[in-house]
Amino acid sequence: MTDLNARAEALRALHSGEMLVLPNVWDAASAEILAEAGFPAIATASAAVSAMLGYPDGEGAPWREMFAAASRVARAVSLPVTVDAEAGYGLGPREFVDRLLETGAVGCNLEDTDHRTGKLVDPDEHAERLADIRSAATEAGVPIVVNARVDTFLGDRGIPEPERVAEAIRRGRLYREAGADCVYPIGVRRRDDLAALVTGLACPVNGNVGEELDLAALRELGVARVSYGPRFYFAALEGFRAAIEKR
Amino acid sequence: MTDLNARAEALRALHSGEMLVLPNVWDAASAEILAEAGFPAIATASAAVSAMLGYPDGEGAPWREMFAAASRVARAVSLPVTVDAEAGYGLGPREFVDRLLETGAVGCNLEDTDHRTGKLVDPDEHAERLADIRSAATEAGVPIVVNARVDTFLGDRGIPEPERVAEAIRRGRLYREAGADCVYPIGVRRRDDLAALVTGLACPVNGNVGEELDLAALRELGVARVSYGPRFYFAALEGFRAAIEKR
Repeated sequence: MTDLNARAEALRALHSGEMLVLPNVWDAASAEILAEAGFPAIATASAAVSAMLGYPDGEGAPWREMFAAASRVARAVSLPVTVDAEAGYGLGPREFVDRLLETGAVGCNLEDTDHRTGKLVDPDEHAERLADIRSAATEAGVPIVVNARVDTFLGDRGIPEPERVAEAIRRGRLYREAGADCVYPIGVRRRDDLAALVTGLACPVNGNVGEELDLAALRELGVARVSYGPRFYFAALEGFRAAIEKR
Repeated sequence: MTDLNARAEALRALHSGEMLVLPNVWDAASAEILAEAGFPAIATASAAVSAMLGYPDGEGAPWREMFAAASRVARAVSLPVTVDAEAGYGLGPREFVDRLLETGAVGCNLEDTDHRTGKLVDPDEHAERLADIRSAATEAGVPIVVNARVDTFLGDRGIPEPERVAEAIRRGRLYREAGADCVYPIGVRRRDDLAALVTGLACPVNGNVGEELDLAALRELGVARVSYGPRFYFAALEGFRAAIEKR
């Protein structure tokens, strides 16, 4: 576990200081490209990995296949790898941690959506789950880096727009207290909302690049970590579609 | 096996009539794109699949992982799928056929290179192997479509340029007599060479697009099937590299 420990601590350290930029990958070769380009860590995107495997996003793929794909990514690089583990696939805390570490990854995204209902989970229950996962990681001997995704900004989760910032802060604080290293309110489009979140959460925050939010704006707002989701994978597929259509 | 039988016969029929164009895929999503675009069959490229899985081409990946990737492609589409099975991974004829059919594929490329030495195999021995695979397919009850790759045009296989056409015809005829459905002299760049091969082989021939050989030229020469190898996958990776470098 020594090597995994060192990678976990390296990934954790990347959440303070320079903003951590993570163009999400989907396979071994895309991970190798990031490593060659000098990125310090690698993150997968579940929507990309699911599509590559032939399943819908949102835990549509069996977790064994998702974790096998993560293993291939982790085997391809010597950098810390963090896995978009959706809502954790209903695995118990210790099993989740063990299977994650078996892939060679040292971090994960965990989201507060129940994919059976498509709704947000109760935030207190989710915080408890995150605390259990933190304890399981301590037991397993590797301080995995947990990026707690907060899904209040996703349009179909039922949170009215004016309440999204406050609800995300409420949830994010609970998750942070439960042991999350970073809080990820996915899908924030407005600069003001993200500023309020960074201030209100007072911990490392994961942002997304968007129309109002380029990397410079995200840095200025004090965002700790930026991810792109499946956009590069889908762009690659669009390139393929264009190439075969003009043949 | 009824469905596999029908798919095998459909794939075989595609080798007569209109030239069969196969932009090679690497995962489920790229296969789905071809299906949506109306292509009649799907072919994988081993160099793309290997890279995606994190292994070098030329049987660098374990066959189980290569066949698992093929299964994901076959599960994603209802079209006939043909797998670039490299040199067959040293599997016995019946095991090779059974594992191939388990993926849901109904055809394969098999090349006459020994990846342990990097050299061409003895053509008579290779023909015998192809005949054994044909018999095994008959036993298994599915008339798989075998595309026998002839590697004389690959620069590092030790065949001097002036001898490549004649040696490819000699080998291709042996493979055809052994039960191959199509002969694939990979890497032919010159129009004259390909014309000589189509005439000399007198059976379905697989060509590649190149500088002297666009789809119209290949059609004119009477090529039965065109494949692209890993070029679309590598183009997708180059797109990713360019996108992250300009970030």
